[in-house]
Amino acid sequence: MSTSTPAGKGPTTRELILDRAYELAREDGLEGLSIGALALSTGMSKSGVFAHFGSREQLQLALLESVATRFVEFIKTPALREARGLPRLRKLAERWCEWSRIHQSGCVLLSAVVEYDGRDGALRQSVLRQQAGWRDELRRAIKLAIDAGHLRVDTDPTQLAFEIYALMLGLHHDAGLFGYEEARHRTELALERLFASCRYMEPEVGR
Amino acid sequence: MSTSTPAGKGPTTRELILDRAYELAREDGLEGLSIGALALSTGMSKSGVFAHFGSREQLQLALLESVATRFVEFIKTPALREARGLPRLRKLAERWCEWSRIHQSGCVLLSAVVEYDGRDGALRQSVLRQQAGWRDELRRAIKLAIDAGHLRVDTDPTQLAFEIYALMLGLHHDAGLFGYEEARHRTELALERLFASCRYMEPEVGR
Repeated sequence: MSTSTPAGKGPTTRELILDRAYELAREDGLEGLSIGALALSTGMSKSGVFAHFGSREQLQLALLESVATRFVEFIKTPALREARGLPRLRKLAERWCEWSRIHQSGCVLLSAVVEYDGRDGALRQSVLRQQAGWRDELRRAIKLAIDAGHLRVDTDPTQLAFEIYALMLGLHHDAGLFGYEEARHRTELALERLFASCRYMEPEVGR
Repeated sequence: MSTSTPAGKGPTTRELILDRAYELAREDGLEGLSIGALALSTGMSKSGVFAHFGSREQLQLALLESVATRFVEFIKTPALREARGLPRLRKLAERWCEWSRIHQSGCVLLSAVVEYDGRDGALRQSVLRQQAGWRDELRRAIKLAIDAGHLRVDTDPTQLAFEIYALMLGLHHDAGLFGYEEARHRTELALERLFASCRYMEPEVGR
């Protein structure tokens, strides 16, 4: 991950720290993030790292926020170049599979769900906001596909969004255990079947 | 969790340690398991705990094994009482949803996948064996449903097992974030749609 910066300017120290924190958190999750290890890895003093974030929790929150933004951009930007409706929804799923490929050794966003879904506090709130926000994005893309006449009007966007999300969890899970290519093949077959089940039945020609 | 023991005998010390280890691992995962905390929690000395397992890794392996056995028994025993085929497959899914309800605050088996899928070693091997074994169980149940004529002969057991597994991941994920009841409702709808898509088309009466 390299954090985006204004053209012509190098990354700020804060951004460099977040980049290193990201690499560490991919291995050990947000809870495994230690200011000591981060200071060592950036060549800064612990107090130097603290000065940019104020606390370990603020650092974790800033990191979660920056990865979530990156995730949405990675998927949405290419999807928005496609025509509204099913082409956009398909591109979105395709980019999500790509994100999963790149992050098969560990996704900070998914690990954060496991780490914080049972704990109260600012990190759980942030995870919840990020997850609910992404589910809303999915629902919106599905609604556009219904409006465009690509999916049946009785398609339930919340249900379809849940099922797409579940398949992406299946992809991430299986990729880490049994290999990415087989898992992606399974995911793509399932997505096609899922989309087909929400489309108007077309008369089959030649049968 | 209470470990099963021969009738008339109380649990052994080893079983009592595993019970406590399980409670600790539900919160912090297998990696969060410390011999020190376990000794404190069981009122034993650290060397007393070590004497029963030999090493922290042996303890983690024994715990993983005992939870995996418990998971399979929890689901398979009631499923085997149902008729072969779709009734058994449905019961299996229903019990899996129940396991997810009981373990919504944290499932050691799923956490272990996140913890070890990227690391070499005996724990990864154990996780892999457990996951592959469970997927085989699912495939077997699906094949029986095909043999019984409840699912179409062109149903791909590996694909269907992947999709059922993905839905269960979706259930666990959503339950922790958005609440169990809504997540279970979504999962049940998806399972029904999935099973229906693999069944022979029956002529619809009254349309």
